[in-house]
Amino acid sequence: MPTFSERLTETVSRYGPLCVGLDPRIDMLPREYEELSPVDAIERFCLKVLDLVRPYCGVVKPQAAFFELLGGGGFEAMDTVLKLAREKGFVTILDGKRGDIASTATAYAEAAFGPTWDADAVTVNPYMGYDAVEPFLAVGRKATPARGVFALVRTSNPGSRLFQNLQCEGKPLYRHVAEAVGEWNHAYGDVGAVIGATNPAELKELRAAVPDVWFLVPGYGAQGGTAADVKAAYWPSGGGAIVNSSRGVVFPYHRDDPDWELKVINAAMKAQAELK
Amino acid sequence: MPTFSERLTETVSRYGPLCVGLDPRIDMLPREYEELSPVDAIERFCLKVLDLVRPYCGVVKPQAAFFELLGGGGFEAMDTVLKLAREKGFVTILDGKRGDIASTATAYAEAAFGPTWDADAVTVNPYMGYDAVEPFLAVGRKATPARGVFALVRTSNPGSRLFQNLQCEGKPLYRHVAEAVGEWNHAYGDVGAVIGATNPAELKELRAAVPDVWFLVPGYGAQGGTAADVKAAYWPSGGGAIVNSSRGVVFPYHRDDPDWELKVINAAMKAQAELK
Repeated sequence: MPTFSERLTETVSRYGPLCVGLDPRIDMLPREYEELSPVDAIERFCLKVLDLVRPYCGVVKPQAAFFELLGGGGFEAMDTVLKLAREKGFVTILDGKRGDIASTATAYAEAAFGPTWDADAVTVNPYMGYDAVEPFLAVGRKATPARGVFALVRTSNPGSRLFQNLQCEGKPLYRHVAEAVGEWNHAYGDVGAVIGATNPAELKELRAAVPDVWFLVPGYGAQGGTAADVKAAYWPSGGGAIVNSSRGVVFPYHRDDPDWELKVINAAMKAQAELK
Repeated sequence: MPTFSERLTETVSRYGPLCVGLDPRIDMLPREYEELSPVDAIERFCLKVLDLVRPYCGVVKPQAAFFELLGGGGFEAMDTVLKLAREKGFVTILDGKRGDIASTATAYAEAAFGPTWDADAVTVNPYMGYDAVEPFLAVGRKATPARGVFALVRTSNPGSRLFQNLQCEGKPLYRHVAEAVGEWNHAYGDVGAVIGATNPAELKELRAAVPDVWFLVPGYGAQGGTAADVKAAYWPSGGGAIVNSSRGVVFPYHRDDPDWELKVINAAMKAQAELK
């Protein structure tokens, strides 16, 4: 069976690095979904988006928070969306940024990679150290096919500098975290790094610091990172990064726009072309 | 209406600082729960534990991971457990360690504090900066009664040193995070800190560094912190810390032990007495 990284390589070589973030914000959904219950609305909207973007991207990233907001039914919708995404051949990244340890982290990992959601990869928060990452690797290795983990390193939000850019023993905190991710990836495989597009110089620095690690790059498009900025994350041979766009692809219209499906298609097509 | 901190003060003065962690690990439940579905088993077990520990503690902390593991039904069980805990007069802390930003964090906060779970407080991961904390404060302030947030500062797991103890601009990373929590608490109120019992010297250092902040102290009991260790976190006038015990109170027996309920009662009574 291929590793998670090998599956990413195959997918990116076929579709390019675009990853579409599925953030079903109930108050931004096209008006026609208003007649459905909130759970049905976000589920059907996500399934529609999967159809619309299928030709233009190989990876989708459901954001757990917007499903969690709707309680148990929301999580069942997330399950349906993940299952259908897999059936359509997408690589799926569950964006939950979970961060806990020991048997608690194992429970999160079994939820993410087991029958509950069966995602191909998850995002995790490494503040608690390797203990917060290892259980995901252990559970992910036993799954078929093998699963991946993306640890937060340098995030794209304005306030991220507060801790991530502290100078710690000669280098910024984010650099320590990146190098740890590099070691874990070297030792165990399939550990990637979340590195925002909004700091191009740091993106370049980190690409050089951990040349072998896959990057998941948020912040392209709506958050201000340009296609030129994110290309610093690519490997010269192709691959090396997947670039997420959520609002830019999923909500490039007003709620009452009758052409909203066409606008999603155009946004995905444009992003795919820009990022290649 | 009282603030979250005022409610903690009232609860701790009445019951002492013990917080019982509800970690319903399906494979550790008393044998009699085996005949139920996993969702029914964890729900009924937690409700039973709430009854058993009611006289000995004022705060309970459901661990989201063990509910998440059972998918949508698990989250509905968590809702039931949180509702009943509130009805019985417990202060509830939802231990999800969520960590995201902007509208995504708002969705997590609305799930935690709104109709989905309606918890009194949540744990959050501050690696992404103030952006990861502020949406919880904003949503929590609008709720009735006001809600609280506990940010991870110095966790009790062995691997936590890797990043948390890096020396950054003259002091350890955990100290930077603690001082930020102190500022947020000063400016907005109801921001506490998670600080493990397993590093008594650091617990004492942090108590001095942020004297006004409520601490949520894990690591007491099964993880090795003693009652003497955790008392360094208390305010001289009483209050200032709640001390979590999960396994020590919830699983002090073998699965086939017919006296398991009595053992839970005894463990809770003993922990309450030790921590006073």
